[in-house]
Amino acid sequence: MIPSKINFSENFSKLPDDCSLRIVAKKNDYEIKIVKFKGEFVWHSHPDTDETFIILDGKMMMHFRDKLVELNSGEMIVIPKGVEHKPTSREGYKAILIEPEGVPNTGDLESEMTINKIEWI
Amino acid sequence: MIPSKINFSENFSKLPDDCSLRIVAKKNDYEIKIVKFKGEFVWHSHPDTDETFIILDGKMMMHFRDKLVELNSGEMIVIPKGVEHKPTSREGYKAILIEPEGVPNTGDLESEMTINKIEWI
Repeated sequence: MIPSKINFSENFSKLPDDCSLRIVAKKNDYEIKIVKFKGEFVWHSHPDTDETFIILDGKMMMHFRDKLVELNSGEMIVIPKGVEHKPTSREGYKAILIEPEGVPNTGDLESEMTINKIEWI
Repeated sequence: MIPSKINFSENFSKLPDDCSLRIVAKKNDYEIKIVKFKGEFVWHSHPDTDETFIILDGKMMMHFRDKLVELNSGEMIVIPKGVEHKPTSREGYKAILIEPEGVPNTGDLESEMTINKIEWI
């Protein structure tokens, strides 16, 4: 099966609102997702996996318990497993997320922001 | 250990020439690499892993035995394991590559383009 390409702008334009998360591709046992977010997320960590954010647009403030990292378009961060973090964004951001299949968006925390089944776009 | 962010432009500016490949980050047992390429690569496949290209700049023509896919900035492709492919580019491209640790750049083919040990940047 020869694959089709994925165009990020096209996919982002299909997202329903400012806080959306969708799967765009599978690669081995990983999922590649797009996320659009504005506001304050929740403190959480992923006990079993590192998490990768690649920022495509906007600005994200990634809070750690003892550090704050500002991420702009064209920047990436890998959050080691077990490390507590909280993304926030006043302006909003668009990012690519790379995680093993089935990783919950709020990690080990169950909150009103938890999405139990992330949909494909 | 709280991670530092990675700025792709900064890292690309450190690449020595038009055909360079470097590791910028590790995530679980995967490596995230940046690649700058111009010209014609070799036909190859990766028998044990899918391969992901995210194009950041320029244009890549991804050749398959029975299909040609044009990839521009802001586009991605996942090449399934075992599928023969050959990237070419007249103008040059800059891309992010996501692959399991230690995957050879020319897959199951040993050629003058093979890089045996990919360096970090």
